[in-house]
Amino acid sequence: MLLLEITMALKRRIRLFERRRFMSEQIKRLKRELKFKGTILDFYQDTMEINGDHTVVWDFISHKGAAAVVPVTEEGKILMVRQYRNALERYTLEIPAGALDEVGEPGLECASRELEEETGYRSEKLEWLITLRTTVAFCNEKIEVFVARDLIPSKQNLDEDEFIDLKAYTIEELKEKIFSGEIEDAKTVSALLAYDTKYGKRA
Amino acid sequence: MLLLEITMALKRRIRLFERRRFMSEQIKRLKRELKFKGTILDFYQDTMEINGDHTVVWDFISHKGAAAVVPVTEEGKILMVRQYRNALERYTLEIPAGALDEVGEPGLECASRELEEETGYRSEKLEWLITLRTTVAFCNEKIEVFVARDLIPSKQNLDEDEFIDLKAYTIEELKEKIFSGEIEDAKTVSALLAYDTKYGKRA
Repeated sequence: MLLLEITMALKRRIRLFERRRFMSEQIKRLKRELKFKGTILDFYQDTMEINGDHTVVWDFISHKGAAAVVPVTEEGKILMVRQYRNALERYTLEIPAGALDEVGEPGLECASRELEEETGYRSEKLEWLITLRTTVAFCNEKIEVFVARDLIPSKQNLDEDEFIDLKAYTIEELKEKIFSGEIEDAKTVSALLAYDTKYGKRA
Repeated sequence: MLLLEITMALKRRIRLFERRRFMSEQIKRLKRELKFKGTILDFYQDTMEINGDHTVVWDFISHKGAAAVVPVTEEGKILMVRQYRNALERYTLEIPAGALDEVGEPGLECASRELEEETGYRSEKLEWLITLRTTVAFCNEKIEVFVARDLIPSKQNLDEDEFIDLKAYTIEELKEKIFSGEIEDAKTVSALLAYDTKYGKRA
């Protein structure tokens, strides 16, 4: 137990030392090597030169980017999607979102498409809200988030029995779910609170 | 150009079809295989059975988790860290944060340590604010976010010339930076807006 504590304390000291160096010194990437090509992600390892005197290896995940949308109904409610997330092994409540078709696709186009595919509504009134970087420590994923108003039922509207995973909530209900820990998805938390900050009524 | 458009339209139709199935049908993980072990991340591929009749392969990144902290000074300003992010190839402005020492370390302990290491202040008044999942589509990373008050200069306080990357901002300044696109880091956007929603003065 004591040995474990000493080991941990040493690890922390070393990390603190390294961090101070990172913060004040030069960091330079010497090379980037593809280690594994996944279905949607590529795993690289970067060899970084620190302060010109030693190297470390950092993980880097390449992602093509995504877009998300806060769909606002006529009554001012927000359409949310419930879906199973394999990475968390549970269902989550999220704003509609999806990956770009390919690198370089405009976020607005992707957001329009995802809105229609996931909710059965389309909109000609999409407005940029915020841009997010989901995990700056190791991944380049960028998500552009839009607000969609004047929702129009789409030709691609799902059948009634397929609507089970889509539900409208007031922003107050959604804020409660964020502060109770029911909603944890970072793009959803960011987007809902940004929407409320920008457009919400204040007490 | 026409061929490209047809290809894209077909891709979309197939994806829409697949998505409707995912949303309403059964998803079951048949196996998880480690494909590459990185420095801080492990890359897996999961074979998923969809509706009992066919399989797809999904990427899964395992991360041990992290904690972050919104450090509030006596004047009500927030301490922010500027650091170089290799994944984005630029500097970012973020709240202090860092990975757990090991799976299972309490988020509160990690947040206390990161606060001290990154700002040179410690606090005995840390309070849970929100919990985030950074990238639910492919990674299990969880970040617990705390608010720290009554900051006490620490023994580990950095030297004056090492403070260059630390700066205090008002929440109004930080909100402007979110809506101008200067701050994009999702944990930072979520945490600052959650702090403002919960504790901020409303107009």
